[in-house]
Amino acid sequence: MENFTAYNPTSLHFGRNVLSQLGATVGRFGKKVLLVYGKQSIKSSGLYDTIRQQLNQAGAEVYEYSGIRSNPVVEDVDAAAAVGREHSVDVILAVGGGSVIDSAKIISIAIPVEAPAWGFFERRMMPRTAVPLIAVLTLAATGTEMNQFAVLTNHKTENKSGYGSPLIYPKHSFLDPQLTTTVPAGYTAYGIADLIAHSLEAYFGKGEDASLTDRFIFAIIREAVEYGPALMKDLTDYKLRAKIMFAATMALNGMTMYGRTSGDWGVHSIGHILSFLYDVPHGASLTIVYPAWMELQRENLGHRISLLGESVFGTPDVDTTISRFRDFFSSIGCPVRLSEAVTGNIDYNEILRIMIQNKAATFVHKLSHDDYQRIIELIK
Amino acid sequence: MENFTAYNPTSLHFGRNVLSQLGATVGRFGKKVLLVYGKQSIKSSGLYDTIRQQLNQAGAEVYEYSGIRSNPVVEDVDAAAAVGREHSVDVILAVGGGSVIDSAKIISIAIPVEAPAWGFFERRMMPRTAVPLIAVLTLAATGTEMNQFAVLTNHKTENKSGYGSPLIYPKHSFLDPQLTTTVPAGYTAYGIADLIAHSLEAYFGKGEDASLTDRFIFAIIREAVEYGPALMKDLTDYKLRAKIMFAATMALNGMTMYGRTSGDWGVHSIGHILSFLYDVPHGASLTIVYPAWMELQRENLGHRISLLGESVFGTPDVDTTISRFRDFFSSIGCPVRLSEAVTGNIDYNEILRIMIQNKAATFVHKLSHDDYQRIIELIK
Repeated sequence: MENFTAYNPTSLHFGRNVLSQLGATVGRFGKKVLLVYGKQSIKSSGLYDTIRQQLNQAGAEVYEYSGIRSNPVVEDVDAAAAVGREHSVDVILAVGGGSVIDSAKIISIAIPVEAPAWGFFERRMMPRTAVPLIAVLTLAATGTEMNQFAVLTNHKTENKSGYGSPLIYPKHSFLDPQLTTTVPAGYTAYGIADLIAHSLEAYFGKGEDASLTDRFIFAIIREAVEYGPALMKDLTDYKLRAKIMFAATMALNGMTMYGRTSGDWGVHSIGHILSFLYDVPHGASLTIVYPAWMELQRENLGHRISLLGESVFGTPDVDTTISRFRDFFSSIGCPVRLSEAVTGNIDYNEILRIMIQNKAATFVHKLSHDDYQRIIELIK
Repeated sequence: MENFTAYNPTSLHFGRNVLSQLGATVGRFGKKVLLVYGKQSIKSSGLYDTIRQQLNQAGAEVYEYSGIRSNPVVEDVDAAAAVGREHSVDVILAVGGGSVIDSAKIISIAIPVEAPAWGFFERRMMPRTAVPLIAVLTLAATGTEMNQFAVLTNHKTENKSGYGSPLIYPKHSFLDPQLTTTVPAGYTAYGIADLIAHSLEAYFGKGEDASLTDRFIFAIIREAVEYGPALMKDLTDYKLRAKIMFAATMALNGMTMYGRTSGDWGVHSIGHILSFLYDVPHGASLTIVYPAWMELQRENLGHRISLLGESVFGTPDVDTTISRFRDFFSSIGCPVRLSEAVTGNIDYNEILRIMIQNKAATFVHKLSHDDYQRIIELIK
């Protein structure tokens, strides 16, 4: 087991009607609230009214920034930070999925500085303080509600990139599975895929001797494999939504990293390129790349894939395990080839060019240019 | 799944030589340190010198309270709190196992009040603030290093009782498995038993639908069942010590309670009575009571015992599962009958009297006086 520090200060409020405590919680941080959200769907669902009612009860002065896109871009973050700065907000309330909450995390550290937020991603500046962030999650997927990471896209630098800092843990996150019962099939499936991929990135990271952490990972993946298909058959089932929402949080709240020094994150970095070039949803990019990546690693990491297969599917066979993952992703409606996810032409040379430019998958299990080429063949 | 809040602010520093950061960490909380420890064994092992060196480097002014007993008593807590109050300490450093850290937790909330600490346990007073607490753990067992609970004994009220408050989470805990390599066989085994018992108290608590939390619990127990016996054969093995130490922390840091409203804690409350009357070590009291309690509950909780058996031992049979636990505890050298743990006469009527007086095991799965009698027969 590698040395590690476990630290996670987020208060996670999980279950039915937990939003009834939202106003009081926000109120403890101050009166001036920057409300950040994405599309107008929170208005049609009634969630927006619930939120505003809670904020009114707390006597909040609310400034809004809406229109955060999926695969969120740094321009929105800079614009929202300007609003927060102008009004000297006391607290940020992010309502949405990973895109909104990730954006809000960077907004929270961008407000105190007078500079474009991409500087954090390029390590040209370090945050010193953050505006407190409270999150209301509407999509079970990324785990951002209980971690210190955020991912943004910058079209100028041709980059989708991650950033981490203990300053950007949400102070509180509210997770009512009922809010996710209206998520359509596609994004439900991508969320299930995302939580499995997060678990795998940790599992294939550095520190193979963390046996209990491995068991936690198998527990999370088995939960997704067992209840994911049931949820796809009844998207409105609260209990199943709760199981998947809880699993998604656990998959990236730090516990899968205890006893390891890092996750691999190679598949994510390749997936980000597919999302960047073809606007492939994040979860879908991972179901395309992960089976291919495992095939590429079948010699190098055969022992790990075998243990994974035995613990999740009851088979130690490496090829069978990879097939089982591909079949599982397909069964819940996720693409496992890029051509399934993209209508129109795919420029594979462009993918290769950006992989090389971004040095994709060069963190733990480093991929060569030849490996990139093989991955591209395997995802075609 | 029941509604829950996940919150745990402790920073846990785990691994080889993590104490090298102790002085700097303590120093961030102030200069005046109340150092709390138990027996003189930390002096002979050299740990005391390491600690004092770290504190010296931080320029600390150190006040000591030593002599905390196992099955710690409230008188020590009151005396130590008086020392802390007299010198207006900025921070408490607890070095030891569960007894020392539990005592230090109550000291941390007793210093700010001018009253005997037992008032917290009798709910006659509520803490408002706490002196920050930093812990160095020398025994893998209770999980106190990363939770908000403490257990103390009061001989006047004939009571061993638990107390919980978010104020008593340690700010930082340092866990170097190397420090546990000198723990003798008995206490090593009791620690393994304790972590299994904690997992079971959560598993048999309220909220059976928390399937992922169940899987986490099975993971922790399987880790103990797989690596515990190996550790008993080589008490100095760092890797095995690390596995058990990590598992013990996970068994009671809150994660086994996600999706539940409470643990059962009936076995603990009965075990506390055996510890109180016969000074039976805590872990040993649990290996005596747990198999008996499961036998008593074999009808009522047969479905849970069966799932547990299947997930941990590969058998769904209830009686076999109970036997496997009893055999496992025996195999690592723990008593499974009270007569194995006590030399001299045992007054079973006195045990029954205190069970009735303390209303033992009346939290989730309530035991009647007849049940007490049956438990006593089963542990004889």
